[in-house]
Amino acid sequence: MSEQAVQIRTGGKILQSPCGPIIHGLEDVLIKNTSISDIDGDKGILWYRGYRIEDLAQHSTYEEVSYLILYGKLPTKKDFEDYVSRLRKNRDLRPETIEVIRNLAKAHPMFALEAAVAAEGAYDEDNHKLAEALRLGRYKAEEKELAYKIAEKLVAKMPTIVAYHYRLSRNLDIVKPREDLSHSANFLYMMFGKEPDPLAVRGIDLYLMLHADHEVPASTFTAHVVASTLSDLYSAVAAAVAALKGPLHGGANEMAVRSYLEIGDPSKARDVVEAATKPGGPKLMGVGHRVYKAYDPRAKIFREFSKNYVAKFGDPKNLYAIASAIEHEVLNHPYFQQRRLYPNVDFWSGIAFYYMGVPYEYFTPIFAVSRVVGWVAHILEYWENNRIFRPRACYVGPHDLQYVPIEQR
Amino acid sequence: MSEQAVQIRTGGKILQSPCGPIIHGLEDVLIKNTSISDIDGDKGILWYRGYRIEDLAQHSTYEEVSYLILYGKLPTKKDFEDYVSRLRKNRDLRPETIEVIRNLAKAHPMFALEAAVAAEGAYDEDNHKLAEALRLGRYKAEEKELAYKIAEKLVAKMPTIVAYHYRLSRNLDIVKPREDLSHSANFLYMMFGKEPDPLAVRGIDLYLMLHADHEVPASTFTAHVVASTLSDLYSAVAAAVAALKGPLHGGANEMAVRSYLEIGDPSKARDVVEAATKPGGPKLMGVGHRVYKAYDPRAKIFREFSKNYVAKFGDPKNLYAIASAIEHEVLNHPYFQQRRLYPNVDFWSGIAFYYMGVPYEYFTPIFAVSRVVGWVAHILEYWENNRIFRPRACYVGPHDLQYVPIEQR
Repeated sequence: MSEQAVQIRTGGKILQSPCGPIIHGLEDVLIKNTSISDIDGDKGILWYRGYRIEDLAQHSTYEEVSYLILYGKLPTKKDFEDYVSRLRKNRDLRPETIEVIRNLAKAHPMFALEAAVAAEGAYDEDNHKLAEALRLGRYKAEEKELAYKIAEKLVAKMPTIVAYHYRLSRNLDIVKPREDLSHSANFLYMMFGKEPDPLAVRGIDLYLMLHADHEVPASTFTAHVVASTLSDLYSAVAAAVAALKGPLHGGANEMAVRSYLEIGDPSKARDVVEAATKPGGPKLMGVGHRVYKAYDPRAKIFREFSKNYVAKFGDPKNLYAIASAIEHEVLNHPYFQQRRLYPNVDFWSGIAFYYMGVPYEYFTPIFAVSRVVGWVAHILEYWENNRIFRPRACYVGPHDLQYVPIEQR
Repeated sequence: MSEQAVQIRTGGKILQSPCGPIIHGLEDVLIKNTSISDIDGDKGILWYRGYRIEDLAQHSTYEEVSYLILYGKLPTKKDFEDYVSRLRKNRDLRPETIEVIRNLAKAHPMFALEAAVAAEGAYDEDNHKLAEALRLGRYKAEEKELAYKIAEKLVAKMPTIVAYHYRLSRNLDIVKPREDLSHSANFLYMMFGKEPDPLAVRGIDLYLMLHADHEVPASTFTAHVVASTLSDLYSAVAAAVAALKGPLHGGANEMAVRSYLEIGDPSKARDVVEAATKPGGPKLMGVGHRVYKAYDPRAKIFREFSKNYVAKFGDPKNLYAIASAIEHEVLNHPYFQQRRLYPNVDFWSGIAFYYMGVPYEYFTPIFAVSRVVGWVAHILEYWENNRIFRPRACYVGPHDLQYVPIEQR
């Protein structure tokens, strides 16, 4: 095909090169059409498959939302029951995967998650069947069915990997999944080994619903690039976990909670916020968002939940009080108003985690437990019209240097 | 920053969307300036850091070439000796990583490689030190030194992961690395447990030199995307392995050898090549290349090597004879001439592997053993001017659907 010029619109930074302009970080560059999720950053709206996140948060569950994201529509009662039953039957891991986690029990859980997802895929016969079909260029009804089956397994197993790692890291016996518990209740049960409090279950379920998809940030993009080679779903998800691990991507809610603990008292909020407006001053954690220039709709939901949570269980470390005080200052400060900087979901989402006894290092793994459904849904969408990602780099070095033997260097 | 329009030149396919044009697979889209490798596809030239691949193949070794790619220049004698000594000391794996490989011994080695790289990174103190510095936004001389140290470890350890998996998959004891052997000699020694033949060592070394970098195919791009979140070098390499695993990326030399075995006799070459020119006919494996529209310079080197190899060890399965016959037909057929389709490196590189007794499933892992240095060099280059990758998808679905309770669906 002959070369042509294409006009791309971007709000990102342009780097110059002898080969043409470079859009740094590919900011705003389109990679595909999608019907999975949409964000209106100006108005602060997030939709999954056309449904507003507020409606889903109020009426739905992660089990239903994951179905919606994966299959594109809300399930009938029958379809939902079948789906939930499949998820619940698929929760446990192979013995080899458990051994991999055991060997990584003393490491950060994100590494264990990367390795365990690869391990689980390594022995999945469905995965090999699909990989072989893809290798031969076949992706028809039968293969798609297989792909959805694998996608469901990934959604089902992610919480188990995280919970098993938590148990093994503390030299505790693993707690096997229970089929009579919901996705979120079972997750807390596998972590802590006891019937969880309903409000904690609701908190986890809300978190999982609110993080299930968010268009194509770096982790979801990574999943696309890996899957575009027709590698496999497990490998693409393991790679997405690797990207989510980065502090520029996951991990912001941990930083927010840590900052509240450091601040220690709501009365310091004004000074902290004021300091953040000064050049070179400390950054406020969880304030401002690359896309949302209005109040993050997920933050609103989590703020409300945090309020209810501390109303029931108390706020012994003042986390909710401090966050509320900071938010009050931020919303009323011209610096943040002019720049349209609002508290985002990470500002609020770590508080309940902290009080539930979830250690910091499991905050980002729980993000992955939620986002896995977005990753696999995006891969399945991209495979409908797959093309391997093959960008370019512009060579700016020398040519035809003369090789000099080492003795003469 | 306000939005602007940027003109991008591409030979790729354009998809339409309501948000603007989509360059499918980001073909030809520039992601950065580079001084690592350059390809002249029209003339069939490949340079690493300005040196022609033919010169390096003739005079150098993988140990030197990996230094060149990583550090940007050929080493002095002293620097080279220090580098080689560090590589050799870093070859072995942690006990936990070996256990991870043992648990994946019956699986495809690419899964084991993904998991083992993550496992090795999970316990590397240098990796955590660097990650913590990056999280705090520090990437100065001290951190860069750490990054290079980690990069060297990855180069040193990849062959060990692959060789250990080979041993464990066959219920053989692992063979510990020997510091007195070169990178390639030690690799064959760890695989087969005996002092390797010098011509086999040369074959592996050539292969590793010829695959050490090739600008930004999907695996190298994956490494960029993951590393751009400031995740870590091991996670980025594990993700790159996941991408290389895909049949649209790695694995072509295996397919070529399999096709020669199937063809079985050089006398059938003419018919096979003729059939490949017919619409819907079988594809010729290892012929044609997305970038090279001339004879792939790496193929030339490997053709020569294969010739020498079978001259010494024989050609009992006629692989070299069949490949030569197919090449002869291809080079003289107007169909391939007009389309500028030439045998590429994969056409030739599998033959010696096959005769050395390397099983098919280890062909792509050996590709990773080579390319790891390209991956880490590109990451270090990108980190000099890092920006997280954040492309977009264009939403084409519905909005504000009404949530209907499940009983009413």
